[in-house]
Amino acid sequence: MTRSELIAEINKKQSFLCIGLDTDLSKIPAHLQDHPDAVFEFNKQIIDATHDLCVAYKPNIAFYEMLGSKGWDILGRTLDYIPDSNFTIADAKRGDIGNTSRYYAETFFKAMDFDAVTIAPYMGQDSVEPFLGFSGKWAIVLALTSNTGANDFQMNAYNDGAPLYKDVLRISSRWGSEENMMYVVGATRPEMFKEVRELVPNHFLLVPGVGAQGGSLGEIAKVGMNGDCGLLVNSSRRILYAGDTEDFATVARSEAQKLQEEMKLILS
Amino acid sequence: MTRSELIAEINKKQSFLCIGLDTDLSKIPAHLQDHPDAVFEFNKQIIDATHDLCVAYKPNIAFYEMLGSKGWDILGRTLDYIPDSNFTIADAKRGDIGNTSRYYAETFFKAMDFDAVTIAPYMGQDSVEPFLGFSGKWAIVLALTSNTGANDFQMNAYNDGAPLYKDVLRISSRWGSEENMMYVVGATRPEMFKEVRELVPNHFLLVPGVGAQGGSLGEIAKVGMNGDCGLLVNSSRRILYAGDTEDFATVARSEAQKLQEEMKLILS
Repeated sequence: MTRSELIAEINKKQSFLCIGLDTDLSKIPAHLQDHPDAVFEFNKQIIDATHDLCVAYKPNIAFYEMLGSKGWDILGRTLDYIPDSNFTIADAKRGDIGNTSRYYAETFFKAMDFDAVTIAPYMGQDSVEPFLGFSGKWAIVLALTSNTGANDFQMNAYNDGAPLYKDVLRISSRWGSEENMMYVVGATRPEMFKEVRELVPNHFLLVPGVGAQGGSLGEIAKVGMNGDCGLLVNSSRRILYAGDTEDFATVARSEAQKLQEEMKLILS
Repeated sequence: MTRSELIAEINKKQSFLCIGLDTDLSKIPAHLQDHPDAVFEFNKQIIDATHDLCVAYKPNIAFYEMLGSKGWDILGRTLDYIPDSNFTIADAKRGDIGNTSRYYAETFFKAMDFDAVTIAPYMGQDSVEPFLGFSGKWAIVLALTSNTGANDFQMNAYNDGAPLYKDVLRISSRWGSEENMMYVVGATRPEMFKEVRELVPNHFLLVPGVGAQGGSLGEIAKVGMNGDCGLLVNSSRRILYAGDTEDFATVARSEAQKLQEEMKLILS
């Protein structure tokens, strides 16, 4: 999906919501536990109930890998089930030397048909570039993450006085453009968005950490939005596990709707 | 496998060779291309031919993921086929927020039974710690990688004057011990090993980049070894694709043997 197509979807749905499909067999409703295809069935019902309210879905690959080859198959079928009008993000946080990153890119962009993959920047340019050569596909590079461990390296200052995450933004933004790169910036650090926007005014930001991790949607929108919206705000647990009975999908929809209505107000 | 068991294997085999199972369907010999289980058959013959000459095997997960659920199944069967006396490394370069990293750890250490996983440190302590709570299991953290992209961030200096990779060594080495952590240090930068050893004198180092990427085994051993050997030197393409006919495994063995004999001299 291209940048202009993504912006059109945001405007049409009046939403910049991304739903994280972090589907955990131990957390899905009891009545689905014995279903022969429980994880896919859960995803299917969540997608049916929410696809008109969100612009993106983001399966967290760890939750599928832990199920082995069966999980990989569920991931593929989930991706196929998501409507083409939803942007899809493989939350994989990959990153390796060039020839290996090329295989990861082919896995997520060609063998599967994700629109985007999250990438860890530690290994530098040749680990990110293989993700940038596919039309309508995106590398979403970790800049400032929402976890406490972000303090260990990302927030440490370089000899030019800038913390690592700012060097990641400054240096890596030269490797691609706002048409094929986004950045992960956690909602738990709203005070940092101003500095992020000074370095990457036009890029989309994928923002985890609203809700369960404590970030506020209104506050993030105020400091993080740009003229094209420029935000995909992710919510996972708050929506997926809002209900734990047979009407879980209806309850999930109503949680997604609350966020979409808040986003509609913000966008107008 | 514990540290003392690993050291015992190194002494017994007079080898610190790790063979990277970066098995690429497009590079395996022509006579295997039509085999119904070509990648596993290739791995099996490589393992049969080399397991007494190397102490470790390191499948690069990208090469299996690109084959989808079938690749994940081949990875599992390859791991099961490797003798228990060989140390096994999932070269996955994972790293995510704590609860997700825990799932990656359970995938590689429990669902499968790898001895170690390679980890990208960008997300800090809570992304690494979930890999440290398994007896006899290891997190192998990227410090200084062998690719050109290592110059982008890893070599940049912090405000304390140390480049990022040294801060990764200094800070992350407090999270675990030499019994459950190793570091990736590329053979392409032998001049850096002295500084690495000042920070982590006792840790094992996993060293890629000997051979195809240009690093020299003798030079690395001189600057990187410690009293317990402290090195696992990886070779992938040089061994796997040494031959391309029906005797490829014999040719691979002879390449592995050259390295093992050089290592034997170094160890004595």
